Amino acid sequence: MMSKVWNYYAGPCMLPDEVMDEAQRDFRNFANTGMGLVEISHRSAEFDKVAKDAEALLRELLNVPSNYKIIFEQGGGRGQFAAIPMNLLSENGTADYFVTGHWSRCAYKECAEKYGNAVLHECSYQDESGVWHVDYSKMTVSENSEYCYICLNETVNGIESFTLPDTKGVPLIADMSSDIMTRPIDVSKFGAIIFGLQKNVGPSGMTITIVREDLLGKARKYCPSILDWSVLSKFDSMYNTPCTFAWYMAYLNFKWIKNLGGVEELERRNIKKSKMLYDYIDSSDFYISKIAANDRSRVNCVFTLKDESLNDEFLKLSKAKGLIGLKGHKVLGGMRASIYNAMPIEGVQILVDFLKEFAASHS
Amino acid sequence: MMSKVWNYYAGPCMLPDEVMDEAQRDFRNFANTGMGLVEISHRSAEFDKVAKDAEALLRELLNVPSNYKIIFEQGGGRGQFAAIPMNLLSENGTADYFVTGHWSRCAYKECAEKYGNAVLHECSYQDESGVWHVDYSKMTVSENSEYCYICLNETVNGIESFTLPDTKGVPLIADMSSDIMTRPIDVSKFGAIIFGLQKNVGPSGMTITIVREDLLGKARKYCPSILDWSVLSKFDSMYNTPCTFAWYMAYLNFKWIKNLGGVEELERRNIKKSKMLYDYIDSSDFYISKIAANDRSRVNCVFTLKDESLNDEFLKLSKAKGLIGLKGHKVLGGMRASIYNAMPIEGVQILVDFLKEFAASHS
Repeated sequence: MMSKVWNYYAGPCMLPDEVMDEAQRDFRNFANTGMGLVEISHRSAEFDKVAKDAEALLRELLNVPSNYKIIFEQGGGRGQFAAIPMNLLSENGTADYFVTGHWSRCAYKECAEKYGNAVLHECSYQDESGVWHVDYSKMTVSENSEYCYICLNETVNGIESFTLPDTKGVPLIADMSSDIMTRPIDVSKFGAIIFGLQKNVGPSGMTITIVREDLLGKARKYCPSILDWSVLSKFDSMYNTPCTFAWYMAYLNFKWIKNLGGVEELERRNIKKSKMLYDYIDSSDFYISKIAANDRSRVNCVFTLKDESLNDEFLKLSKAKGLIGLKGHKVLGGMRASIYNAMPIEGVQILVDFLKEFAASHS
Repeated sequence: MMSKVWNYYAGPCMLPDEVMDEAQRDFRNFANTGMGLVEISHRSAEFDKVAKDAEALLRELLNVPSNYKIIFEQGGGRGQFAAIPMNLLSENGTADYFVTGHWSRCAYKECAEKYGNAVLHECSYQDESGVWHVDYSKMTVSENSEYCYICLNETVNGIESFTLPDTKGVPLIADMSSDIMTRPIDVSKFGAIIFGLQKNVGPSGMTITIVREDLLGKARKYCPSILDWSVLSKFDSMYNTPCTFAWYMAYLNFKWIKNLGGVEELERRNIKKSKMLYDYIDSSDFYISKIAANDRSRVNCVFTLKDESLNDEFLKLSKAKGLIGLKGHKVLGGMRASIYNAMPIEGVQILVDFLKEFAASHS
């Protein structure tokens, strides 16, 4: 048996011990059926219970109002980048994209290149000292806008938007793939929320859309049925065979979150964890965070070494110590520590200890 | 521990013991990383090896020519029903659909309702005695046809087409979701083959497209990137985060198939298994197969009780004996036993024993 490793991957990423233990224990005998969860029909009573329980827990944890539908689907965030305009944007309509980093820019491009009039609002900027800020003043709404799009946590850039723009009644569509269930939100403020499971609530292979029901029924004719929210909603997300394993793992994660005290407790933990990490980085003259204190992601801590020639050595040594996945996204370089819901405070303490140790031995 | 159950679900369905054991054993420590496979990044060296090994095994097992690309994607067969016309059909082009059952009809509808000129060829018929036949003579090619579509095994109907139509050089696109790797095929005879994993080669959550490379690069402008074969192929199926668990399970299944002797050995087993089951049904005056002997699926044995008032009793008793999933698809009624690659001959023998026993006690 190898020694304990700490997993800072940005997603897929570490899942709670309790979740992984239960999934492993029951892998060949789910709910005493004598079959594995992945071996039973998505139409079986046993799977149906998992599916419904997952939805009920999600509704409870996020306090989802009854006029919102919850859809479990395939295709990832990228699939939703296409689904959003195909479901919401009329042929001659306008959509506002509030871009704060890599993923909102990707969503903007998918819409602009394929589906119609997408207005790009550059909503983050670097000041003279190289520090990134979210610019909420740029989050303005076009005349005739049919929706406004925002990515609340930019996984690649490490930027999180904690304030919601005032869209003057135009539906706000949010990608919360990396911050869903890391803090309470008021779902009624959104037209739709989309998120992949693979950061805070499960493995890869499933995406969830929470959508206000009056926004359904407008999909373009050419929208593939598997991305048509109305079709999926009408069939309770069983229009086609879902990824049963991911749905089950979402259920286990939701159960875990409920047992520990819900998203309010997770927010307390995530504030504590991220503060511990940023406080050390700010106190050090070896590491730098280039993001304004108010706009720093609680779950993706992006930082650089002041002396970037030490990057390889840093990654080699951290890996040797069992700290995995600290390399930044290829579009940005530098380092990134993802400390999602499943990461205990101990894992952040160990990372800080390593940062100190490395700084001390390389200063 | 409950007693052994036998799983005849049509998919998701039973997987090989060896595959399930290995997946369970390594669930929390994949490849000695100290992390679960579902917890590691799809960009990690460890997952990259799984992905590449799965593709290499698939190429080897089906003898896929080098001018074919293999794409691992999300969205299921239903997703491909949209992807096929969006990738292959020009705006004013024609596509021929050879319909032999439920799923080819669904594929036809998705194309006809959303994407253009789809020609419906009814390629199965019921004779005067109520027996279903595949009518290969109806598989004709329209002038200016851009592709011909066929579903080689109709999971719902229990009909399998063992002869390929002569499409006069027009690309033949086949859905092989339920018969992939149940027998050798000559991939070079196809323009593309699509299949979901969840019958013969894994759990739900992943679809594979094998496509001749000269057919790439023609996707419609509005084709979502996640269904654009050219985009997915260019990024080695990592344009977006794949369902890593399903990809890994496909790898384990491919390895299992290779170890037991490849698809040739599976074909021998599948012939033997299906013959045992149909021979008994044909010999009985209690059960009926309404499909012509030459057109019967080797993997989905659809049958009815002569006295259909016994259906509920049959399902209740079979379940009590640990024989699960024998209820036919809702569109057809009756019974269906799915005996895919993972089903050992013992499972078929046990089913036949039960059929005999039930017939004896209810005649």
